[in-house]
Amino acid sequence: MEYKNLILDFEKEKFYVLDQLLLPFEEKYIQLKDVNDVYFVIKNMNIRGAPLIGIVALIGVYLSNDTESAFELLKKARPTAVNIFNYFEKLKEILKKNKNSQKEIIRDFIINTIKAEEDKNYKISQNGFFLIKKLINKNTVNILTHCNTGSLATVGLGTALGIIKYTHQELSKLGGKVFVWVDETRPYLQGSRLTAWELEKEGIEFNIITDNTASFVMSKNLVDFICVGADRIAKNGDTANKIGTLNLAILSKYFKIPFVVAAPSTSIDNSLDNLQNFKIEERNKDEVIKFKNVLITKESYNVFNPSFDVTFFYLIDYIVTEKGVFSYPFDFSKID
Amino acid sequence: MEYKNLILDFEKEKFYVLDQLLLPFEEKYIQLKDVNDVYFVIKNMNIRGAPLIGIVALIGVYLSNDTESAFELLKKARPTAVNIFNYFEKLKEILKKNKNSQKEIIRDFIINTIKAEEDKNYKISQNGFFLIKKLINKNTVNILTHCNTGSLATVGLGTALGIIKYTHQELSKLGGKVFVWVDETRPYLQGSRLTAWELEKEGIEFNIITDNTASFVMSKNLVDFICVGADRIAKNGDTANKIGTLNLAILSKYFKIPFVVAAPSTSIDNSLDNLQNFKIEERNKDEVIKFKNVLITKESYNVFNPSFDVTFFYLIDYIVTEKGVFSYPFDFSKID
Repeated sequence: MEYKNLILDFEKEKFYVLDQLLLPFEEKYIQLKDVNDVYFVIKNMNIRGAPLIGIVALIGVYLSNDTESAFELLKKARPTAVNIFNYFEKLKEILKKNKNSQKEIIRDFIINTIKAEEDKNYKISQNGFFLIKKLINKNTVNILTHCNTGSLATVGLGTALGIIKYTHQELSKLGGKVFVWVDETRPYLQGSRLTAWELEKEGIEFNIITDNTASFVMSKNLVDFICVGADRIAKNGDTANKIGTLNLAILSKYFKIPFVVAAPSTSIDNSLDNLQNFKIEERNKDEVIKFKNVLITKESYNVFNPSFDVTFFYLIDYIVTEKGVFSYPFDFSKID
Repeated sequence: MEYKNLILDFEKEKFYVLDQLLLPFEEKYIQLKDVNDVYFVIKNMNIRGAPLIGIVALIGVYLSNDTESAFELLKKARPTAVNIFNYFEKLKEILKKNKNSQKEIIRDFIINTIKAEEDKNYKISQNGFFLIKKLINKNTVNILTHCNTGSLATVGLGTALGIIKYTHQELSKLGGKVFVWVDETRPYLQGSRLTAWELEKEGIEFNIITDNTASFVMSKNLVDFICVGADRIAKNGDTANKIGTLNLAILSKYFKIPFVVAAPSTSIDNSLDNLQNFKIEERNKDEVIKFKNVLITKESYNVFNPSFDVTFFYLIDYIVTEKGVFSYPFDFSKID
């Protein structure tokens, strides 16, 4: 991995994020000087991916003089990303116990969280590879993925894309490889812009397809495994993820292809029994009717642009976390 | 209907097609002066839609001095559109019987074919409305459609979109209406550009959605009926249509929503038992990686861009033609 999505220098108090809106064309960093900068890069989607958003939000808290109001502001930036909420709860508890040297406590919490996230991603990737080895008796495995769940979305290898990278490395040792079908992932094109960019960096072969083409490649037996990330998982396994995930899950059942969600256990929200009434974030219609400020269609047309959908737990075969692989029906009760 | 996709003046020998690549922003016509102009507007997709392509190809034959070589050239422009082949076969038979005044014969054939197509579209639209009335006991019907199958794709009301327009007119009389979910239809965006444009002209309410959002709106019980067109239909009902149609058909089965194909009977190709080995037209990768010459992602990335997919007959509930509504399992043997 030759790329960094995040540069943190606590000594010099300098913090940068890679501007994902410019990828795959330019690799430019944005400096974060205060909590408003952080709010903006999350809201504006210069960075995205639930785990990365969580870490960057913590930097926002670190940069703020008022921890409480930073919490409140940043929670509003991307309401679907549960990591922000989880990290904030943990941090609050730690801060309660230590009234002094807040700044240092927050710094240590960020450093520890990053280390923990990297470890988690590594274990998710490894667990996913073991699952693939168990399910698919081939040295070349064709995996379809959606959105971006790699190093750009997380800190570390990634989740679904981490599994792809890890599996590719392991299969390469056996003379095999991974081939990836990259859903372009409308409207924001995280697949064709970001996942393709990461796969190129990793030297993994891929083909970009429109989201419309997923069933076509499945119908031609060109997909062995479907692997996606998660923004939030309920107690029963219901999974909120990038819009289009539900499409894929239903197609996977029709074509009998394993459908696998990969996420750190922090994405599991035990306060939610299911996601039946989960509020879906609706984003600006510009994402659908414009590309780089060029109008695709008339600005006046009505657009419905939900950013996520909910995949019902019974459409998911496996949920891979750092704490193990859960299979349908899901019982996360052993997770602490 | 205040718009024309085609202006034909046989007296002055002037022929124009509406440039669909400029829609919905500009309404400009391209003059067709010879068979090469015709080949170009078909190949370049200034016009699209199997029935319209068929008629415009006939104009190419009319404008050519060498009927045979015009046939050969134009058949190559868009190989999936069966109407070209059917019209050419019919025209050849007529020409065989009448050695003289070729030009007039071709002209009359075109005029008669247009009239026949308009009638067919009207009957398809009417038959589709009767089907909707039979299946859905509501005055406001929510219909999801893909690609563009309206007046821009055909000559007349359209096929799937013809049904939508006709149904809207009829339901309006009862105080009801049609509401349309318009799949944007990547990569070429026929939905957000063309179907939206037609619906606006007709005063029918709609929301554009990304193709990824189809299952989301279905899961919320917001779709009563799914209606798409067809580029080619085999004897068994297998249907080749715009990429993404197979996705929708599978989703429709999952959510138990009627999935309906609308097409003139000329789209049924009795020479094909099924479409299992149907050759799918692959189009240029630029459609996926560029928008209006602006790169969406890196030009070097591999893209797989099939223009059509095949929907297996057993996923289709009804095929609506001008000769009646066929339901699964399909028996077209009564069609002459």
